[in-house]
Amino acid sequence: MAFDLNSLTFDANGLIPAIAQDHVSGEVLMMAWMNAKAVEQTLATGRVTYWSRSRQAFWIKGETSGHVQKLVDFRVDCDRDCLLLRVEQEGPACHTNRRSCFYTAVRDQDEVELMTPMT
Amino acid sequence: MAFDLNSLTFDANGLIPAIAQDHVSGEVLMMAWMNAKAVEQTLATGRVTYWSRSRQAFWIKGETSGHVQKLVDFRVDCDRDCLLLRVEQEGPACHTNRRSCFYTAVRDQDEVELMTPMT
Repeated sequence: MAFDLNSLTFDANGLIPAIAQDHVSGEVLMMAWMNAKAVEQTLATGRVTYWSRSRQAFWIKGETSGHVQKLVDFRVDCDRDCLLLRVEQEGPACHTNRRSCFYTAVRDQDEVELMTPMT
Repeated sequence: MAFDLNSLTFDANGLIPAIAQDHVSGEVLMMAWMNAKAVEQTLATGRVTYWSRSRQAFWIKGETSGHVQKLVDFRVDCDRDCLLLRVEQEGPACHTNRRSCFYTAVRDQDEVELMTPMT
């Protein structure tokens, strides 16, 4: 069946959450948002492109930092309101220079930092 | 540092997205939403509890289906507006009876079903 962009469910702001996962290690790297055009561009170019809610602009991941995300596999969930991107991540995915944005754990009511910034 | 629930950023509806990942295989199982109380309950009980937007009610995962999610590790992202739950998943995570909700891939503009329902 051909994929139809209109089959996706976008929220009231026209956005859909997209989870980026390292296609080799399985590590969850980050979660960001896409609008329909960002989905289209990501599929067309193979370069993961989000919609920045803070800047209200397209955000071609790594365009300024060099930490690009190459799309390996694009997945849609059962409700079609969330995306999973299997990616090849260049360097850190997080703006703090850590490999993943999910570097803080909550254990026994305390925060534990699991990763240090990459050098 | 002690974890403070108020340090999380909830959206306009008082919700935060939570990604559930199999703690052994690394497979991303599903994404759902939590409110502050659901986060609190999940941490207190070790049983993953979401907020169902469609039912507008707490959703203790697996309470009716038996497909419970036991919390193994609770993670917060850099912006504190997304959660990653490393879980031990009993059976399928998806309401379609598939292990993961992300069973559809988009490849060469076509949809490909990657998983069949568990029996």
